[in-house]
Amino acid sequence: MAEQLKIGVLGASGYTGADLVRLALRHPNMEIVALTANSHAGKPMRAVFKHFAHVDLPDLVTIDEADWGALDAVFCGLPHGTTHTITREIFASHPHVKIIDMSADFRLRDAAIYRSWYGVEHSATDIQPEAVYGLTEVYREKIRNARLIACPGCYPTAVLLALVPLAKAGLIDVSDIVIDAKSGVSGAGRGLKENTLFCESGEGLSPYAVGKHRHMPEIEQEIGVAAGVADLRINFTPHLIPMSRGELCTSYLRLAAGKTAADLRHQLIETYANEPFVTIADEDVLPQTQMVRGSNYVVVNVIPDRIPGRAIVISTLDNLVKGSAGQAVQNFNVAFGLDETTGIEQLPLFP
Amino acid sequence: MAEQLKIGVLGASGYTGADLVRLALRHPNMEIVALTANSHAGKPMRAVFKHFAHVDLPDLVTIDEADWGALDAVFCGLPHGTTHTITREIFASHPHVKIIDMSADFRLRDAAIYRSWYGVEHSATDIQPEAVYGLTEVYREKIRNARLIACPGCYPTAVLLALVPLAKAGLIDVSDIVIDAKSGVSGAGRGLKENTLFCESGEGLSPYAVGKHRHMPEIEQEIGVAAGVADLRINFTPHLIPMSRGELCTSYLRLAAGKTAADLRHQLIETYANEPFVTIADEDVLPQTQMVRGSNYVVVNVIPDRIPGRAIVISTLDNLVKGSAGQAVQNFNVAFGLDETTGIEQLPLFP
Amino acid sequence: MAEQLKIGVLGASGYTGADLVRLALRHPNMEIVALTANSHAGKPMRAVFKHFAHVDLPDLVTIDEADWGALDAVFCGLPHGTTHTITREIFASHPHVKIIDMSADFRLRDAAIYRSWYGVEHSATDIQPEAVYGLTEVYREKIRNARLIACPGCYPTAVLLALVPLAKAGLIDVSDIVIDAKSGVSGAGRGLKENTLFCESGEGLSPYAVGKHRHMPEIEQEIGVAAGVADLRINFTPHLIPMSRGELCTSYLRLAAGKTAADLRHQLIETYANEPFVTIADEDVLPQTQMVRGSNYVVVNVIPDRIPGRAIVISTLDNLVKGSAGQAVQNFNVAFGLDETTGIEQLPLFP
Amino acid sequence: MAEQLKIGVLGASGYTGADLVRLALRHPNMEIVALTANSHAGKPMRAVFKHFAHVDLPDLVTIDEADWGALDAVFCGLPHGTTHTITREIFASHPHVKIIDMSADFRLRDAAIYRSWYGVEHSATDIQPEAVYGLTEVYREKIRNARLIACPGCYPTAVLLALVPLAKAGLIDVSDIVIDAKSGVSGAGRGLKENTLFCESGEGLSPYAVGKHRHMPEIEQEIGVAAGVADLRINFTPHLIPMSRGELCTSYLRLAAGKTAADLRHQLIETYANEPFVTIADEDVLPQTQMVRGSNYVVVNVIPDRIPGRAIVISTLDNLVKGSAGQAVQNFNVAFGLDETTGIEQLPLFP
Repeated sequence: MAEQLKIGVLGASGYTGADLVRLALRHPNMEIVALTANSHAGKPMRAVFKHFAHVDLPDLVTIDEADWGALDAVFCGLPHGTTHTITREIFASHPHVKIIDMSADFRLRDAAIYRSWYGVEHSATDIQPEAVYGLTEVYREKIRNARLIACPGCYPTAVLLALVPLAKAGLIDVSDIVIDAKSGVSGAGRGLKENTLFCESGEGLSPYAVGKHRHMPEIEQEIGVAAGVADLRINFTPHLIPMSRGELCTSYLRLAAGKTAADLRHQLIETYANEPFVTIADEDVLPQTQMVRGSNYVVVNVIPDRIPGRAIVISTLDNLVKGSAGQAVQNFNVAFGLDETTGIEQLPLFP
Repeated sequence: MAEQLKIGVLGASGYTGADLVRLALRHPNMEIVALTANSHAGKPMRAVFKHFAHVDLPDLVTIDEADWGALDAVFCGLPHGTTHTITREIFASHPHVKIIDMSADFRLRDAAIYRSWYGVEHSATDIQPEAVYGLTEVYREKIRNARLIACPGCYPTAVLLALVPLAKAGLIDVSDIVIDAKSGVSGAGRGLKENTLFCESGEGLSPYAVGKHRHMPEIEQEIGVAAGVADLRINFTPHLIPMSRGELCTSYLRLAAGKTAADLRHQLIETYANEPFVTIADEDVLPQTQMVRGSNYVVVNVIPDRIPGRAIVISTLDNLVKGSAGQAVQNFNVAFGLDETTGIEQLPLFP
Repeated sequence: MAEQLKIGVLGASGYTGADLVRLALRHPNMEIVALTANSHAGKPMRAVFKHFAHVDLPDLVTIDEADWGALDAVFCGLPHGTTHTITREIFASHPHVKIIDMSADFRLRDAAIYRSWYGVEHSATDIQPEAVYGLTEVYREKIRNARLIACPGCYPTAVLLALVPLAKAGLIDVSDIVIDAKSGVSGAGRGLKENTLFCESGEGLSPYAVGKHRHMPEIEQEIGVAAGVADLRINFTPHLIPMSRGELCTSYLRLAAGKTAADLRHQLIETYANEPFVTIADEDVLPQTQMVRGSNYVVVNVIPDRIPGRAIVISTLDNLVKGSAGQAVQNFNVAFGLDETTGIEQLPLFP
Repeated sequence: MAEQLKIGVLGASGYTGADLVRLALRHPNMEIVALTANSHAGKPMRAVFKHFAHVDLPDLVTIDEADWGALDAVFCGLPHGTTHTITREIFASHPHVKIIDMSADFRLRDAAIYRSWYGVEHSATDIQPEAVYGLTEVYREKIRNARLIACPGCYPTAVLLALVPLAKAGLIDVSDIVIDAKSGVSGAGRGLKENTLFCESGEGLSPYAVGKHRHMPEIEQEIGVAAGVADLRINFTPHLIPMSRGELCTSYLRLAAGKTAADLRHQLIETYANEPFVTIADEDVLPQTQMVRGSNYVVVNVIPDRIPGRAIVISTLDNLVKGSAGQAVQNFNVAFGLDETTGIEQLPLFP
């Protein structure tokens, strides 16, 4: 019989936490033993998310009530800035617990950049060097032994899986990258905000956080690493789309001298030949969010630009799965030596 | 190692067929060996449904090209009226093959009623007596040995799971049933119709087929059987809702003398105490399609009416899963002696 | 040149208030001189509603800052329970000002019923007898001279325009009325609530307030008046639909002895022969919200039920226009002796 | 009393034609005397578009049945390639009739470019020089006396109103323009296509026609004219968004040496200071389709890019109004010497 690993979910009342619970409930090696949500502590999970009416789950507790020592892994779905302390504490006192953080708090290696984008001082800089950036396909080997895994943001996952291999191989000019990004509304979370009301975001399309989105420095950091370039600056412009799930990034790229769109596509096919979750679409197929909804898959393709010397790369994923909870489970599988696809093999739900 | 059963899907280019394929691909005891779609024969499945880009599947073939003898089970997702001949032929020549029909063709026991609602003569009346109505929770024992399983329509599944136990127990007046039904657009299929274009059905709500919907006689037949009443007539009024998946039926009922809404709820709790897929919602929880999207679950509840002597029963399901492909897999599991939940344990996708 | 009437809008930061402003800006006889919104006081209207970026409007002020004496009419878009005091004060001190209340506060004639449904004591019962129920087509003559017009709720407008003529003419059994109601999300207002977030109400369908909706007593009151029946009880069951605007009510009726669906339809055609905003649909046309979006029109039709002795009446309107701001303008036109269609002749926006 | 001008609409059964009819019905100087739709000839308009149930309109006729001599103006909403012959014939035989073409057929000045993008030979090249490109704000003076007005495509209208003044003033490098465009589904028309079914385009986002969209040469032509550059090539990448109406273009621009985003914004403010339909949004306001739905307004803003030497320009409009029927009416008003805003003053419908 397969090993049962005990897990806890910090921040189980958000969309990311809930999707982690959904996956964990059907994961053959996970047993959910703690769910925290300070504002809902004491309630059954199904009172907070009605779609869990069919299953048994532990009631929600406060962070203080959870017994970290009893766990093998902690998934953290809290907002940024709230996890430094608790993560540091668990990290220090429970060396056997693996922490898989879906928040933004340990993604940026440079504390100054963290401060300037998130507006708070990072209070756990001492354990930052222990954090592995959880872009599974890129950092798989480091994830195997990591105790603290900082899962990437949803947009960075979509962008980086497409662009990192191209930057690494020197196929593109990383100083001229324009990324027009589009996301469904769940990316904004379950908090009550006027702009995510049905009547405000339905039947309409809004750019937001133009030039200011916090996923920007993450993308710059990782493309910079891949290309060996410091202080990279990209254009990243997100738009809110009237759908719940799904994200699509259209990246407008300048090719390295002599390179073609076909070279880029070939590079991606080669890089991802044996990857279970990255699909390079057939030659004439444009990626669309409908190809990934509810699944851990990413679809990427390269389209020739009419303008010589340029190419268009399109990548898409489900922001709550591969963009968050699914990738977290994927990293869990890697970190515990399980088959990497365990529990996240669901095919996209279409229509 | 678990038994591998070879299956074919007739009509794999419709939404119902595609959702069957989605479930079959992850079912541990199914191997897909044939997919038919006359109008798309010769194409790979992923050219017809892009969300299958991630997996290998047999190419689509015509019905004539399929080798029925090689199969253990055939799922049929063709439109009504098109399956009589092929079903009869397979039934006659391949006694070991189980046929699980998701079309309407073998649901009605009375050929005259079939003719009057579907407008065509039934040409396989000789095998109709062999057909078991595939409402799993009601006909489970007969399904175990059936060779031809006629899966119910999506609306009838939602209505009958809620009302059959009440009618059987004599708790309601079956001569006064009003069912206001609401469905997402996928219920209308993938055929090109003006009223299912995004611009026509989006941001709007339309009643349709009022007094004429073909799921009506099925509901009348089965409530009639449950109550022991012939020639039952109900009111069934469907509405098209701007969402892709999901169905919700609000049934307005007159109680039998002396009965209360609480009696109805108690009856349902008792009936479904051990059923894996039927959830009676907590006392104050109103069923909503968000509780079942993408899953094989049904949620039902009974709400007291302010008008004495009446009650409101609400039931909801995903029309493509429990309302079609999921229930078909559930029946497959029963018919082949597998654990009934195999391959359809997915939790609802929310948001 | 046409007369210019000075108006104020109380509660201009809600959807109802905003739609009133939209109509008033293009009404040839209205001049907007005051907009109140306590929580947004001091802001320009276009900071609160971006779609007003194209026009000049007075900045928002608090209720206390408004000069009622300078106005000819006040439209009130505040939530129920908040308008008693201010309405009473304006009514008492500014006899020339007409008050057109879009809230629920003066719709119910019986203070005890108000208290039991709204949970607060009515503190302006003395002026309640002055209030005219603003269902224009029914109370037009009284509206001409009214100083306080209590515009009906959105659902009641849709239901009553369809059922009042039938009840008055004795064509239906008013003791057996089941109304299955469906509304777009704007009916819930702009307040921040979890269930009206895009991710919660999108791609899903939810019944709500079953047996408890506050529009129920209004409907009972007015059908009771029309039929001459006291203490009427009806079934009214609302559902939240994933669209922004629009409302459709499906009423399941028992016919008076010997009457037919055709009799009902004939009665409605006759009643509304000269009404500019009530359309009886062609014989085989089912009303749908797409027929009225963004307009002041109501569409009604009667559909025969397969069950003898019953009929189905369907009515639809835009909840923010004919269901609120549009009907308020219509009443303004009547009250000031203008052509009744002035400023609300817009045709539906489709798609 | 105002002059009444007789108009006809060619292709009244499409979304563009229908929106023209909607506006014309409330235009004080238009009388609709002919509506053509070959495939629906003989039907009443309200049988083809149910939202016209409230009004009287001439029945649909074939093109051959229409009496062009009786008209003052013809609006053409036919698909491209179908209007050459009829336009030429009307142009030749009825010199007093003004033709306002909403199709693509007379937008491109170069017949070779037309042929290469539209795949058909242009058969009315002789009257092409008479055609004025109907971008009202740019070509107003020529439109006054034009007999043939070729209204721009929806995307070109959104892009060109934003970029033409910048190109003219030499503020941007026109050789490096990337336009990421997003449109609601109505832009694809009412024809039956699988990808515009509700279930296919709902809850999802798809790029389409990447590098191949037919609005590209129009944009290149007009920016080229503005900048005085021949053979311009731009990147134009459209995406299909799950909403019915609305279009938003995000243009990524390289600034001319020494110029800033503020310079661009200032130029636009100056250019459009007295234009009734072009709104430059407040400094921190990002344009969104919700600001224009159902109206003839365009909203534009310039946002500084973090990357030095670059800027982002965002423009949005309703594709069926300012992007088609509304601009056609605006041109009609100009051509007949009416107040330019007549009949198209409607404010956006929000929510």
